Amino acid sequence: MPADVVAIARDLLRCPSVTPAEGGALALVADILSRAGFTVERPVFSEPGHAAVQNLHARIGHGGPHLVFAGHTDVVPPGDEAQWTHPPFAGDVADGVLYGRGAVDMKGAVACALAAALDHLAANGGRPKGTLSFLLTGDEEGVAVNGSVKLLKWAAERGEKFDHCILGEPTNPETLGDMIKIGRRGSQNGTLVVTGTQGHVAYPHLADNPVRSVVRMVAALLAEPLDAGTDHFDPSNLEFTSIDVGNKTVNVIPAEARARFNIRFNDLHTQGSLRALIEARAAAAAQGARFRIDWEPSNAEAFLTAPGPFVTLVGDVITSVTGRQAELSTSGGTSDARFIKNYCPVVEFGLVNASMHGIDERVPVADLIALTAIYREIFVRYFG
Amino acid sequence: MPADVVAIARDLLRCPSVTPAEGGALALVADILSRAGFTVERPVFSEPGHAAVQNLHARIGHGGPHLVFAGHTDVVPPGDEAQWTHPPFAGDVADGVLYGRGAVDMKGAVACALAAALDHLAANGGRPKGTLSFLLTGDEEGVAVNGSVKLLKWAAERGEKFDHCILGEPTNPETLGDMIKIGRRGSQNGTLVVTGTQGHVAYPHLADNPVRSVVRMVAALLAEPLDAGTDHFDPSNLEFTSIDVGNKTVNVIPAEARARFNIRFNDLHTQGSLRALIEARAAAAAQGARFRIDWEPSNAEAFLTAPGPFVTLVGDVITSVTGRQAELSTSGGTSDARFIKNYCPVVEFGLVNASMHGIDERVPVADLIALTAIYREIFVRYFG
Repeated sequence: MPADVVAIARDLLRCPSVTPAEGGALALVADILSRAGFTVERPVFSEPGHAAVQNLHARIGHGGPHLVFAGHTDVVPPGDEAQWTHPPFAGDVADGVLYGRGAVDMKGAVACALAAALDHLAANGGRPKGTLSFLLTGDEEGVAVNGSVKLLKWAAERGEKFDHCILGEPTNPETLGDMIKIGRRGSQNGTLVVTGTQGHVAYPHLADNPVRSVVRMVAALLAEPLDAGTDHFDPSNLEFTSIDVGNKTVNVIPAEARARFNIRFNDLHTQGSLRALIEARAAAAAQGARFRIDWEPSNAEAFLTAPGPFVTLVGDVITSVTGRQAELSTSGGTSDARFIKNYCPVVEFGLVNASMHGIDERVPVADLIALTAIYREIFVRYFG
Repeated sequence: MPADVVAIARDLLRCPSVTPAEGGALALVADILSRAGFTVERPVFSEPGHAAVQNLHARIGHGGPHLVFAGHTDVVPPGDEAQWTHPPFAGDVADGVLYGRGAVDMKGAVACALAAALDHLAANGGRPKGTLSFLLTGDEEGVAVNGSVKLLKWAAERGEKFDHCILGEPTNPETLGDMIKIGRRGSQNGTLVVTGTQGHVAYPHLADNPVRSVVRMVAALLAEPLDAGTDHFDPSNLEFTSIDVGNKTVNVIPAEARARFNIRFNDLHTQGSLRALIEARAAAAAQGARFRIDWEPSNAEAFLTAPGPFVTLVGDVITSVTGRQAELSTSGGTSDARFIKNYCPVVEFGLVNASMHGIDERVPVADLIALTAIYREIFVRYFG
């Protein structure tokens, strides 16, 4: 009899594990995996100025190949609970749909991977033909300083070597089987700071209005595309998210203007090359205006898990279960895959992301069953 | 023996008449003018939400021509008094220079006009050959709602008809005799508000970033001159004094962007025509973006006192006293001349403006004596 994925998912949803709270979620996972024979460890990471966060590492088997399922059990806050049709931490099932914060992002997928692992072990005498691991963090939705970054380093220091990783983030825009993510764009924030000379608005020739310069420079930076995209990536994109001068006095020309921006970039760039490009374009548009760019620290470089046997295996399994040809995509925001890719090739596939972070986050029971079947079949073919 | 302009100026500077406080300044003026035979009234104007402000009207003589000297006895705050070489309300004279807040803007010029009037009456049997009036307000440096606007209306309702006005604002950039102001540019404030659609910065195609639109529209509005200037006016000028989005979340595309601006405009425009022009140019640059322009109320229309006998008289007198050919200018900020011009032609001439509103505001005693001579000679020729 297969593992009851709906029961596991429901039990996970009942744990109020809003980042950085563990909420009982990792304890539940640890209990399930220990009973199935996994060696489970639960390292807690801390850093000054941040809450300590619980994490989980579990492994079973010996030798290669070594497949790791990665994910997180923390969730974003539920928002106004009164707006939920079903309470966010009740785990209600209604009309074949399971409701709750984390249903798709991503306790549901964690439950599917757990159920698939239990099924695979049950069908294979309790051991995979290789090594199967779980890496689960409680710090994915927060600042992510005490989560996967440290968990991966911790595992590596203990000699863990992963050959491939499945990250269970919700990847499908509409229907299970739509999309596999084989990479992510990088992300870089910065602030363009233009300095002028304050003065009276009636005597502009005695002042140097930084608003004129910042508008010219922002317009120039927006006018020229960063690239035309690549085989697997959309064109890189620059968005100015705020311009702030904060001058409340209408007869005064201000001394400074600040324009904050975010760049989502593809694998034609590194953060270093991108910074150099933006600095050069800004200088060309400055026309003598004094400016600087304050770059924010970022650990989100662009990366691609090049299509090959592992990506093909995952895609074939998805097709066999859902009948769909999943798109190989690098779209969307960042994920912990940006950390994992430094250790092994990583592919992301999980549930449908339409309701994630929203009121009434939910997953059809049918999707849980299908995703369990997909993960199970991945284990079969991977260890087969 | 001529009136002692330095003593009058010093006594005025000792009155702490920071707007809206009267500080004893108008009482001092009233005393001087009453003793000289003027009929003096001191109307107090008030308006909900604003401090009540004292004003002064004085007149002597009958029939035409009717010349009015206009000005104010209120001053801006002294700022950090510790930085002053001489206390701002002490009226110290050192090395032939009188120090104090209001020395040039414009208690000094009020003192000169008072001394000139006393001298003129003394030389003419106590009456001008016509009518000489003073209109002094205590609300020029503030919001100007309980000052000249109401004082002029109040006088008109009592049947006062002025033929010409001298406004004693500091008009000279460097040396007494540099510049007469024969008009002023108008001033209009507005805020361009662009509305977009909020969204995640990683999915810009699902959002509509108002920062892109506001930058394009501001750049377009700055690119095209409003006009090329006229015989007596500089080109009109548009300055954006602030752009504010206030989006603190770097992964969110904001919903709104605001750009505040001020226009100093010449007599090719009225506020109405200018608003229509800016609205049309903004619409042309909007490329479909939703926007509105919030126009702030303003009573500063551009105006010109066309060169003619009165302007020539004032200019000739300045040349006779200073040896300089005063430039006829419409430059700089606004003044109460914008209200006076609705009642009679107005010419502005006063002291040197270099130190106005600054630390150690000051006037050479020689300038006070020369300006008194100028005002006195204007009275002679005007009533002659």
